[in-house]
Amino acid sequence: MRKKVAELAGVSEATVSRVLSGVGSVKQETAKRVLEAAERLNYVPSALAQRFALRKSGNLGVILPMLPKVNLFSTYYFSEVLSGIGIAAKRRGYDLLLLFREPEEPRDYANLFRTQKIDACILIGAQDVPSEREALAELKEGHHPFCLVNQRFGGEAYNSVDADQGAGLREAVRHLLARGRRQIGFLNGPAVYSNSRDRLDAYREALAEAGAAYEPERVLLGNYSRKTGYLQAKAVADLVRAGRLDAVIAANDRMAIGLLQGLKELGIRVGDELALIGCDDSDVVRMTDPPLSSIRVPFFDIGREAAERLLDAVANPADAAPFDVKLPVELIERASSMPDGTT
Amino acid sequence: MRKKVAELAGVSEATVSRVLSGVGSVKQETAKRVLEAAERLNYVPSALAQRFALRKSGNLGVILPMLPKVNLFSTYYFSEVLSGIGIAAKRRGYDLLLLFREPEEPRDYANLFRTQKIDACILIGAQDVPSEREALAELKEGHHPFCLVNQRFGGEAYNSVDADQGAGLREAVRHLLARGRRQIGFLNGPAVYSNSRDRLDAYREALAEAGAAYEPERVLLGNYSRKTGYLQAKAVADLVRAGRLDAVIAANDRMAIGLLQGLKELGIRVGDELALIGCDDSDVVRMTDPPLSSIRVPFFDIGREAAERLLDAVANPADAAPFDVKLPVELIERASSMPDGTT
Repeated sequence: MRKKVAELAGVSEATVSRVLSGVGSVKQETAKRVLEAAERLNYVPSALAQRFALRKSGNLGVILPMLPKVNLFSTYYFSEVLSGIGIAAKRRGYDLLLLFREPEEPRDYANLFRTQKIDACILIGAQDVPSEREALAELKEGHHPFCLVNQRFGGEAYNSVDADQGAGLREAVRHLLARGRRQIGFLNGPAVYSNSRDRLDAYREALAEAGAAYEPERVLLGNYSRKTGYLQAKAVADLVRAGRLDAVIAANDRMAIGLLQGLKELGIRVGDELALIGCDDSDVVRMTDPPLSSIRVPFFDIGREAAERLLDAVANPADAAPFDVKLPVELIERASSMPDGTT
Repeated sequence: MRKKVAELAGVSEATVSRVLSGVGSVKQETAKRVLEAAERLNYVPSALAQRFALRKSGNLGVILPMLPKVNLFSTYYFSEVLSGIGIAAKRRGYDLLLLFREPEEPRDYANLFRTQKIDACILIGAQDVPSEREALAELKEGHHPFCLVNQRFGGEAYNSVDADQGAGLREAVRHLLARGRRQIGFLNGPAVYSNSRDRLDAYREALAEAGAAYEPERVLLGNYSRKTGYLQAKAVADLVRAGRLDAVIAANDRMAIGLLQGLKELGIRVGDELALIGCDDSDVVRMTDPPLSSIRVPFFDIGREAAERLLDAVANPADAAPFDVKLPVELIERASSMPDGTT
């Protein structure tokens, strides 16, 4: 059978053996010709041997944090991003290898390439901490193709696909001002995520632009979980009752929903005494009472765009230019920020 | 370096070469010894070569349907099951390879094993159709370890982890009867899923047990999407107004929520004129108006159980016995099925 493959590919039997065993050096074009001939003749060597020969795994890696006590895929954010990545990878013939990283685990991403588990990777939920920066610098040095999603590292020109979070925050502030709100607060997430910093900067800019004062007491901190939103309800209610707060923008819907729940228990009427806007426009915000205004972020498109651009770069490394994409967001207005009940 | 590895492993250099290149035959124990020696000496050959030598990929495959126009991971069901699988795989040192299957694509699952992409696989959303049956029979014949989730094939003793859907349906019928409902309808999903058939059988049994009549007009069909629930609202409203229906059990929450939305538009008061119960107890049912009673299915545990049992079988094939697990479900009562407002 090897003889027939050799004849069809127009190479020697020794070359066929080298290609199929993955040992010895063969030009990539020759290797491809041999594998195609083998396939036409229904002579299927182990795909592992094929990939070994071509030095390709056929897998797109997705590096995800393993958050304790959180069912990862249940969160709207990860679900949407992964769906977008999955569809783009499938169309390009790649399988998706999910790599869960424990918080304390070493971040040796380059090893995934050295050991040929993956051909490229997308990082979701990367944090701006020294160990992450080191791991990414190593990827870059090794010329391993990767892309960040919803995260940037100041001073580093890494491939990145993000949403224009700053524009969303500015739009939300303007919307609240137009509705007569003057004491606008902000419930932010941790600063290890560049999105948190982008939003805080935009919040301050938009206030300054409108000549509104920035009051540190109106900036609250959570960790993007529903619980941390819920736990801030007391502080928010106190400010509302003291006449020092009439609106809150939360940096994601989960915190907004937790806050809404806590405020309801404390007797604060959201949509009336206090305007509330979330961020993500996840599927649950239509169902809350009142329905929650939210900044719609195209997470599915972010995932798809990241995978498409990255896999295009893998397919045509010569044409690949670094990319840094920001997709637009949109404020969806609902009853939680419109006390007059108009929609 | 190869010389040192050979010395440490107590084998010849030629053996080390054979193991590290993945070419030539070597006893598994010898291969392991060589790889361990290489690791101790920090001599890391390609993991691909290692896996080639040991005939292991280190990947647990998850075969998923690629549903058109559905963001797969956004659905509560897939999200929870995948999270459970992911956590169990991670603990056992496996990575998760997601394999999306297009509806018309050939189901050549055995090839994933032959080409060493995966060491075991879990099937989510498998359908009882001839091509699926053939593909599974081929897996079984090839002794490739696999497990079905929420699906059974009559007459085949495949590894399976499922919920006790029949018990849930019977509990829901009994709950409605106890609340004075007498004309109980059922909105089911397609019969290609064994869960649909199990639920329908249990629905009929529970009615018969209570001496209540089975009326074909009260059995409606959707495809588990929100939209198909919404589209059945007209038929349901007509039956309610004709005095021929006072309760509906929907086979999942998405259809129940669509139906609820449609009934609201048609002026039917759910919880009062009509009792409604969903199935899954997904995260959104607490937020609907009225909150939706639902049969809680432990999808996360189902995924975890499937991965744990399957990977245990891979680790100890000698001890592996076929398994067929049904996890218990629980009816969570909320206002949609309790007209008197008690909770």
